[in-house]
Amino acid sequence: MPIFYHPDITSGIVSLDAEESRHCVKVLRLREGDSVSVADGRGTLCRCRIVSADARECVVEAVETEEHYRQRPFRLHLAVAPTKNMARIEWLVEKAVEIGVDEFTPVICQHSERGVLKTDRLEKIAISAMKQSLRASLPVIHGATSLSDLLSSNLPQQRLVCYCEGNQRQSLHQVYARGHDAVVLIGPEGDFAPSEIAHAMEAGFVPVTLGDTRLRTETAALYALSALNFINE
Amino acid sequence: MPIFYHPDITSGIVSLDAEESRHCVKVLRLREGDSVSVADGRGTLCRCRIVSADARECVVEAVETEEHYRQRPFRLHLAVAPTKNMARIEWLVEKAVEIGVDEFTPVICQHSERGVLKTDRLEKIAISAMKQSLRASLPVIHGATSLSDLLSSNLPQQRLVCYCEGNQRQSLHQVYARGHDAVVLIGPEGDFAPSEIAHAMEAGFVPVTLGDTRLRTETAALYALSALNFINE
Repeated sequence: MPIFYHPDITSGIVSLDAEESRHCVKVLRLREGDSVSVADGRGTLCRCRIVSADARECVVEAVETEEHYRQRPFRLHLAVAPTKNMARIEWLVEKAVEIGVDEFTPVICQHSERGVLKTDRLEKIAISAMKQSLRASLPVIHGATSLSDLLSSNLPQQRLVCYCEGNQRQSLHQVYARGHDAVVLIGPEGDFAPSEIAHAMEAGFVPVTLGDTRLRTETAALYALSALNFINE
Repeated sequence: MPIFYHPDITSGIVSLDAEESRHCVKVLRLREGDSVSVADGRGTLCRCRIVSADARECVVEAVETEEHYRQRPFRLHLAVAPTKNMARIEWLVEKAVEIGVDEFTPVICQHSERGVLKTDRLEKIAISAMKQSLRASLPVIHGATSLSDLLSSNLPQQRLVCYCEGNQRQSLHQVYARGHDAVVLIGPEGDFAPSEIAHAMEAGFVPVTLGDTRLRTETAALYALSALNFINE
């Protein structure tokens, strides 16, 4: 049973967009009166009835509403220095949404390979990954943010920064307390500058290691996110 | 300090291939007498001296040999039904090598979207991921294998199959014993056929769940591999 997306489905009657209408009517061959599930991207899933099975504009009506659908009791915020190669960021967003992320911030660091980032494509990727993984919530995707702006923003108590240097680093096993909100900060390929790590630690971030191999930025981000979700499994 | 690759470096004096020679001499501007590290892909890392800094054919001589470089005390075998989209398999191999995998088998199942698979490109991707992540071993990459051939092959005692259905599934937390060799079997988008799961269970595979969301094949594979590596961290 596929999940469709409409931000205003809770208002009652909506038209699915052209692509989803086509998928619903042409591909799945659903008809008037058939049931579909529509997520609003904010955690609510509606069981809907198809009012008009139009392949260009399929109209659906919410019949039953389930709030906090598959909502986890914790929130994970991934803050990552965007890679030069945009495909790697897009891939990361797709996988992060499937595995479970609530907030995503591209962080611009001293060694960043990219200073600007269009998030509209990331939003689209997040929507299809949300549907693919049968979720009803989209992560908040922030625009490119400087490290100091991130550090001075409102962050959860559990603050982890993945850092390749230094001997005071601990494992996520030691640092993360199951069930708690957390933010994980992942640096650029060139790693953080020492002053950036110092700044992050002043802001309450604990340096963690992901093992002794060198992971690409997007791999480190996905590995850390997988570990946090796994601890909460 | 980058790592280069040559399967015969332990024999003493070898020529790096054209691409690595160019990288070594043109990009890194290394000269005769400079040191480089060369991995043989079977766990041995050699500290080498550049004998001839030729940008087309850089000749290096092994000076010091370290066997079992960063070798882990356990082996992880990922057996995955290949996706229709080859880019997703290539991505999976890159990430799996970075995170840590010792054996990779594309498994052909009843609901597989792909029955054949060229592994030569996967080998290349594994080599560059090995160098990227500063490892000295390449995973064994098998050709496309039928599920029954896999099940009748020589597998580690810890056998896990990720399955979307069934209520007898356990979490990896409950099933996997830290430090042990393991094989993880991941099915196609259409999941395993019930008869395939039955066959796998007869062969000693324990059904595990990766949570209640639906993960793409390559995402499930990477999440499971991350969890097993994290348990061993």
